[in-house]
Amino acid sequence: MVERVDALMRSYVEELGDSTALTLFDRLPHGKRLRAKLVLKIARESKEALKLASIIELIHAASLLHDDVIDDAMSRRGVDSINAIYGNKSAIMLGDILYSKAFFELTTLSDEIAKTISNAVTMLSIGELLDVELSKEFNPDPRLYMDMIYKKTAVLIEASAKSAALLSSKDSEAFALYGKNLGIAFQIVDDILDITSDTKTLGKPALNDFKEGKSTLPYIYLYEWLDSSGKSQLLNLYKKALNEDERRWLLEKMRESAAIERAIQKAKALGNEAINAVDDPSLKSIISDMIDREF
Amino acid sequence: MVERVDALMRSYVEELGDSTALTLFDRLPHGKRLRAKLVLKIARESKEALKLASIIELIHAASLLHDDVIDDAMSRRGVDSINAIYGNKSAIMLGDILYSKAFFELTTLSDEIAKTISNAVTMLSIGELLDVELSKEFNPDPRLYMDMIYKKTAVLIEASAKSAALLSSKDSEAFALYGKNLGIAFQIVDDILDITSDTKTLGKPALNDFKEGKSTLPYIYLYEWLDSSGKSQLLNLYKKALNEDERRWLLEKMRESAAIERAIQKAKALGNEAINAVDDPSLKSIISDMIDREF
Repeated sequence: MVERVDALMRSYVEELGDSTALTLFDRLPHGKRLRAKLVLKIARESKEALKLASIIELIHAASLLHDDVIDDAMSRRGVDSINAIYGNKSAIMLGDILYSKAFFELTTLSDEIAKTISNAVTMLSIGELLDVELSKEFNPDPRLYMDMIYKKTAVLIEASAKSAALLSSKDSEAFALYGKNLGIAFQIVDDILDITSDTKTLGKPALNDFKEGKSTLPYIYLYEWLDSSGKSQLLNLYKKALNEDERRWLLEKMRESAAIERAIQKAKALGNEAINAVDDPSLKSIISDMIDREF
Repeated sequence: MVERVDALMRSYVEELGDSTALTLFDRLPHGKRLRAKLVLKIARESKEALKLASIIELIHAASLLHDDVIDDAMSRRGVDSINAIYGNKSAIMLGDILYSKAFFELTTLSDEIAKTISNAVTMLSIGELLDVELSKEFNPDPRLYMDMIYKKTAVLIEASAKSAALLSSKDSEAFALYGKNLGIAFQIVDDILDITSDTKTLGKPALNDFKEGKSTLPYIYLYEWLDSSGKSQLLNLYKKALNEDERRWLLEKMRESAAIERAIQKAKALGNEAINAVDDPSLKSIISDMIDREF
C-alpha cells in the first residue's frame, strides 16, 4: 500500500514535466510514511484515500525540506539532506514545488478536507517559526513547548487522521483527537530519545537538542526540579558543546529528578487518551509501538 | 481599493495569532500590487474580488520572499529584504506562512478559481527552478527564456486575470491570454531596463542580469547577431564584473545589433495581442504604460 503512495507521489512530480524537480525528488529519503499509513488504516484503501495519503506525504516532505534549510541540517534519516547535496536553493525550490502541487491536488478533494489540510499547513509553518523563537533562549514553560510541538509535529498528523475519517464517514473529531495526541506523544518520545538513546557514531546519547537551543520536555521538568544553583548550572550548559563532566552532571541530574520518566508518563497519558478516543485495535498498536521504544 | 487589499492581507496574517509573523509581514514592502489592481479592474469591487486579490498578493509576496533567499538578494524595491534583516530562515518561514494561509483562504473560493491559482503556484515554483538552471551557463535559446519567464513571472498574472474573469462571468480564456502576455511583456521590459536604464547609484546601467548569469532576451538576440569571434567575446563577459572597456564593447554591440529594439518589438507584439484579446480601454492603458517606460 505504501508503495502505491510512493508511486503516486512520484507521478505527481513527474506530471510537472521538469526533469530537475524529478531528479531532486528521487533523492529524498522515503521515511516511515507514518501519515500515509495512518490515512490508509483509517480510511481503508480507495482511490481517494491513496490520493489524500500522497498529498499529505508531499506536504510532509516539503516541510522537512524547508526544516532542514532552517535548521542547517546536513543529514536526514541517515542520508545526506537535499540542502547538503544540492544546496539550500534547491531544497527551498523543491519544497515549494511539492507544497504547491499538493495544494493543487487538494482542490480535487472535498472542501472540508481541503480546509482541514491547508489549515494544518498554516499552523505547521507557524510551528516552525515558534520552534526557532523558542530556541533563542532556554524556555522553562511546558505550555509553550507543548503548543510548539503541537503545531510543528502534531497538527499534520491530526489533520491526516481527521481527513481520513471524513473520507470514510467516521467520527472526525474523535480521530482528530487521536491524531493530535499521537503526534504530540511522538514528538515527546523523539525528544526523550535524544537524551536516552546511544547513537551509532558516539556510542552514547547525542544530547543534540539542548546544544541546538531546544529546551525539550525533560529539560523543562529537570529545570522545575532543580534548586537555584542547579538551575544556574543547567542554564550554563544551554547551547554548549558539553565536556565529559558536564555530560555526566546532566545525565545524573536527569536520573535523580526522574525528568525522563515524567516525560514518558506524559506521552503515555496522551497515548491512552488517544486510544480511548477511537475504538480500534490497530490504531492502539500504533500508539503502543511508538511509545514503547527503547528509552 | 488597494489599501483594502493591504488591510485584508494583514488581517489574514493577524488571524494566525503569531506576533513574530505579523512583525515580519509588516516589514515587507507593499510593491505596486499590480496583480491586485488587475483583479479589481477586471472583476470590479466585491467581497470576493478583494479576497481573490489579497490571496494572490500573499502568494506573490511569498514567492518574492523565497526568490530573495534563492537569489541572495539583499534589497527589494530599494529597502532591505527580509532575508537581509532577519536572515534566510525567517524569510523562508514567512514565505511558507503566507503561501499556506493563501491556500487556506483559496478553499473558500470556487473550485475552478482554486485550481487556477494553485496550478499557477506550481508552475511558478518550477519557473524559479528553471531560472536557476538557465543561469548556470549562457542560454542562447529564446524559447527556453520565454518558457522560463512565462512560468516565473507571467503565470500568476495570467491566473489573476483568468480568475477575476471567472468571478465576474467574463471570457476567462481571453483574459487569461491578456494576463499571460502582459506578464511576459512585463518581464521582457524589466530585463531590457537592466541594460538601458541608468541607476541612481551608478549613473549608468546596472548590467546586473548578465553578471548574475541571466541571459535575457537582448543578450540572446545579440548572440544570434554576433559573428563567431563576437560570440566568444560575449561568452567571455558572461558572469563577469565588467571593466569600462568591456561595458563599452557590450553596449556598442547592443546598439549595432539593435538587439534591444528587437526585444522591445517582441514585448510590443505581445502587448498588442493582449489588447486585442480583451476589449477594454483601461486594460489597454495598463499595457501601454508598462511598455512605454523609458528605455
